[in-house]
Amino acid sequence: MNDLMEKIVSLAKRRGFIFPGSEIYGGLANSWDYGPLGVQLKKNITDEWWKIFVERRSDMYGIDPAIIMNPKVWEASGHVAEFSDPLVECKSCHQRFRADQLEGACPNCDGTEFSEAKNFNLLFKTFIGPLEDSSTTAYLRGELAQAMFVDYPQIIQTMRPALPFGIAAQGKVFRNEITPGNFIFRTREFNLMEFEYFVAESDWEKYFEYWREKMHDWLTHLGVTPAHVHEHEIPDGERAHYSKRTIDFEYDYPFGQKELYGLAYRTDFDLARHTKATGNDWGALPHVIEPTFGVDRSVLVTLLEAYHEEEVEGETRVVLRFPKWLAPVHVAVLPLSKKDELAKPTQEIAASLQSHFRVEYDETQSIGKRYRRQDEIGTPYCITVDFETLNDKKVTVRDRDTMQQERVDISLLADYLSDKLRS
Amino acid sequence: MNDLMEKIVSLAKRRGFIFPGSEIYGGLANSWDYGPLGVQLKKNITDEWWKIFVERRSDMYGIDPAIIMNPKVWEASGHVAEFSDPLVECKSCHQRFRADQLEGACPNCDGTEFSEAKNFNLLFKTFIGPLEDSSTTAYLRGELAQAMFVDYPQIIQTMRPALPFGIAAQGKVFRNEITPGNFIFRTREFNLMEFEYFVAESDWEKYFEYWREKMHDWLTHLGVTPAHVHEHEIPDGERAHYSKRTIDFEYDYPFGQKELYGLAYRTDFDLARHTKATGNDWGALPHVIEPTFGVDRSVLVTLLEAYHEEEVEGETRVVLRFPKWLAPVHVAVLPLSKKDELAKPTQEIAASLQSHFRVEYDETQSIGKRYRRQDEIGTPYCITVDFETLNDKKVTVRDRDTMQQERVDISLLADYLSDKLRS
Repeated sequence: MNDLMEKIVSLAKRRGFIFPGSEIYGGLANSWDYGPLGVQLKKNITDEWWKIFVERRSDMYGIDPAIIMNPKVWEASGHVAEFSDPLVECKSCHQRFRADQLEGACPNCDGTEFSEAKNFNLLFKTFIGPLEDSSTTAYLRGELAQAMFVDYPQIIQTMRPALPFGIAAQGKVFRNEITPGNFIFRTREFNLMEFEYFVAESDWEKYFEYWREKMHDWLTHLGVTPAHVHEHEIPDGERAHYSKRTIDFEYDYPFGQKELYGLAYRTDFDLARHTKATGNDWGALPHVIEPTFGVDRSVLVTLLEAYHEEEVEGETRVVLRFPKWLAPVHVAVLPLSKKDELAKPTQEIAASLQSHFRVEYDETQSIGKRYRRQDEIGTPYCITVDFETLNDKKVTVRDRDTMQQERVDISLLADYLSDKLRS
Repeated sequence: MNDLMEKIVSLAKRRGFIFPGSEIYGGLANSWDYGPLGVQLKKNITDEWWKIFVERRSDMYGIDPAIIMNPKVWEASGHVAEFSDPLVECKSCHQRFRADQLEGACPNCDGTEFSEAKNFNLLFKTFIGPLEDSSTTAYLRGELAQAMFVDYPQIIQTMRPALPFGIAAQGKVFRNEITPGNFIFRTREFNLMEFEYFVAESDWEKYFEYWREKMHDWLTHLGVTPAHVHEHEIPDGERAHYSKRTIDFEYDYPFGQKELYGLAYRTDFDLARHTKATGNDWGALPHVIEPTFGVDRSVLVTLLEAYHEEEVEGETRVVLRFPKWLAPVHVAVLPLSKKDELAKPTQEIAASLQSHFRVEYDETQSIGKRYRRQDEIGTPYCITVDFETLNDKKVTVRDRDTMQQERVDISLLADYLSDKLRS
């Protein structure tokens, strides 16, 4: 990993965004737990997505399907037969790798001899009930999409939507990756947000373009610089078996230009497979445009985009310039000193703001160190209560980006912050 | 299942709250998918819980841990050895049951001879990587709590909290139940919200009482009648191995008085197990109060509590009287007729309200049938646009509970609804 990634991983761990999973037991290869700031950052992203793409649209139907589905779903979808990566083993060190990602020599021991490639299925397997055999085998879902196709007739029946309309979901997906890595870029369990947008076949190009634009808008809303995003048109012969057109939205990660989101035209492939497998008649089948948004990758790019270092009075200031709506903490409320005389009224201010904003109260360390911490976690505003406050009922509000300070009347504080945070 | 449960299951399916999982493939024993209204109801509950117990408190730290943890976690916690139910098989029909839930005869075939009870571990097993053996075995988490204990040192290090403080999480939990059932009451994968609240040992009784009261407050906030909730003090000898005191919050379900939430004093059992297993020194260990809130059971009781039937003009009206904040749809916006003349301005009103509220636009069927549907999904307000609206710029607002109608100026509508929904 390069310098910037190391800084992000270190900051994420040090400040409570993202920790290695099961760390006290030596971890579990590339699993990660979201800490207090990371879980809020992630929730802000998923909630905003839900608001924009589900709640505020009248053509979108949300669902939350079970992770363990009937295994026949994965047979019909082709995942049991085809959802695999080519696996090779290094003959010297016996580590396993994806054949399509190897560049000649073993990344672990520089060995150059490998076993023949075998197809390794990426679905995680489990067993329902006390027996462990093929009759009880089930899978953790390897994508969200199948649930949207399987529940399609239930949506038609209960909501009676007219074309075009979408079925949306957010949730965990599991893939038994051979070589996960690059922090939260590729992990074996990860979060997706996605919808299947059902259209008349003749309209597919129109809606493909429509969602392509909306995906760029969303990235801008997240604070991602448009120049860092590249569309990669997947050529014929390289697309997934179900797709007639796919664009990968790639991002300039410090470790290379790689996938962030995807936009696929899945035709009526999946609905046709499920009608065939079940023998049901669902009438004329619509075609499907599928925008897929990786949640963990969204978190990663917002961290990468927000990260800034600047020289301030001869020292390096690290600041996360999140869009204000996205910041895990809106406002830090800080007494200049720990003394009761200041701490008490500061806590009162914090409590009164807490019903409107995400607030953190902090009385530890010097005020300078506390500002540094708030800069590092991307808090747009710091409010400081000093001895003058006791006389003039005003507090100092410090802006994360400009570092400018302003005295504001306590009674006007909530309105002042609402205004500022909306901008 | 009795009458009320049948009505709830039927309404949930018919109106798009909750569907059988993988239904087109004949389902998957007792798995359920949340549909468009159910996912919103559930999200309203989990978001509100997060706001109240995490965002608006300064002593609570949220996390979102991985579902698959290092298997040593479950060995140290005692789950691999002890997290099991006694399983017996009916000698006539070979169905399997929990021995502790049997009442003499087989519920399937009335057989009375059973195999000897064997302990069946409830952890779902899976394998990481291409080999399937004990070296690659991992488990889907069987409770949320262990992640909070395993991440405890990371919270201490990054957030430096003083006692008392809590670590909170929401998420999926998996238990390979022998006999799931009663709709979403007992399923093999389910959602929990929970926190571990760390206190000085001498304070445990105080905080046990504190959280006991907060849990009742939360239930009232959900619209649950206090008389339907019963505290069941688990006697000595029947509590889980880690607990010195446990109260089950039981609810009067139509199928009997059974568990809804739990409140346990877990002592320092878990932290001590993990320090011992890892050989780490975490200093003096705090004690733990653990309030556990089942998400799916919360959804079930809000449906049960909200369900009402009343006689209106000789017909039965079914209405879900959700607390207003909880309703999946805040406002339905309905044109009296489908004609463009009315539909267009109605859609404009719906669009303008959509940035403030969860709005549904519906132009199908007669207005009476549309009111019935909105009553059945618990929408607090219906707005109807009629031909008079074109002249006087007023709409009719119908109240779900009183069925009273009021004419309101379109320009005042957003404020009117904000006021009403806040009450």
